[in-house]
Amino acid sequence: MDSLSRLEATIIARRDADPETSYVARLRAKGRAKMAQKLGEEAVETVIAALEGDRAGLTGEAADLLFHLIVLLTESGVTLADVTAELDRREGVSGLAEKASRPRE
Amino acid sequence: MDSLSRLEATIIARRDADPETSYVARLRAKGRAKMAQKLGEEAVETVIAALEGDRAGLTGEAADLLFHLIVLLTESGVTLADVTAELDRREGVSGLAEKASRPRE
Amino acid sequence: MDSLSRLEATIIARRDADPETSYVARLRAKGRAKMAQKLGEEAVETVIAALEGDRAGLTGEAADLLFHLIVLLTESGVTLADVTAELDRREGVSGLAEKASRPRE
Amino acid sequence: MDSLSRLEATIIARRDADPETSYVARLRAKGRAKMAQKLGEEAVETVIAALEGDRAGLTGEAADLLFHLIVLLTESGVTLADVTAELDRREGVSGLAEKASRPRE
Repeated sequence: MDSLSRLEATIIARRDADPETSYVARLRAKGRAKMAQKLGEEAVETVIAALEGDRAGLTGEAADLLFHLIVLLTESGVTLADVTAELDRREGVSGLAEKASRPRE
Repeated sequence: MDSLSRLEATIIARRDADPETSYVARLRAKGRAKMAQKLGEEAVETVIAALEGDRAGLTGEAADLLFHLIVLLTESGVTLADVTAELDRREGVSGLAEKASRPRE
Repeated sequence: MDSLSRLEATIIARRDADPETSYVARLRAKGRAKMAQKLGEEAVETVIAALEGDRAGLTGEAADLLFHLIVLLTESGVTLADVTAELDRREGVSGLAEKASRPRE
Repeated sequence: MDSLSRLEATIIARRDADPETSYVARLRAKGRAKMAQKLGEEAVETVIAALEGDRAGLTGEAADLLFHLIVLLTESGVTLADVTAELDRREGVSGLAEKASRPRE
């Protein structure tokens, strides 16, 4: 099991935890709009860290962004597997497209 | 190798491709600010799809967000492994924190 | 009448125009989520122009941001006067707060 | 003098105030990236309030967005007059364009 799937499993496990001890449970108690807001804020911070050329900062912000993305997906009934299946599907489509657009020999 | 690592490998492979046939090469030709802008835009669309309760839309927007995040990370010299290592590190810290905050038996 | 109030009046006047000739009418036809998306995108571009120190670019992005903000407010039944009244109210509160926090003579 | 110009004048006046008593001075001490981050965050909150149909919330978020936009513009050497001049210029261009695209009688 890869790191993001483990993170997703942890997030799912903590959704019903005590908001006193779990950040995921606290976010959930505040509702989906708050989770979406956090995702948006982390994206802004990721953009800024990338533009400033701050590699360590970017690593941390990307981690925050992935964390809050998975929280929002989980709340919305979408799994990481749904998203990677979509990415795989596009990759297949795009691979075919690239082949088709190559000049004939 | 999981889906996101495969996507990262594909993105790295296409960076030096012909911008005529590769979207990744086209983005790269436009510079890091453009990649950051795309990430920000996809985050906005993810927020909106989540708030509208549009599960299929959210799946597609989350795929776009992950794709553009990896493009930006790659351009910035940060690997997906760097980001998941950061997530694993926090998970360890947070696991310890949760243990410490549990009431004693 | 100042520039932004004139812009607001123009936006209101064009809401029912032909989408073929009016950008405001086209945006309106696409719905509030699309207007909100445009606002979010222009904010991302404003952030990037500011970080790049691109003054002309920032002027243009800020104009885009204000335009799409007023479009979104109009669609939501909020006037520019509502927003500036809120700003004036805060200014009053904050003026009082600054006075109160000044050391007594 | 309209409300936004008054707000701009207040922001300029407070830039060199004591960060202990002035929010503008505190933001300035944190640098332009922080001001840009605040603008991005307020835009996300504006998007969410608009989608939730929360008129009072939207009024407050739009006020926050305008405040932080003017803070960022001021820091970047762009005046509100520069931005409204750009809006007026476009309005003129767009007025001409609308006239030109009208069917001939």
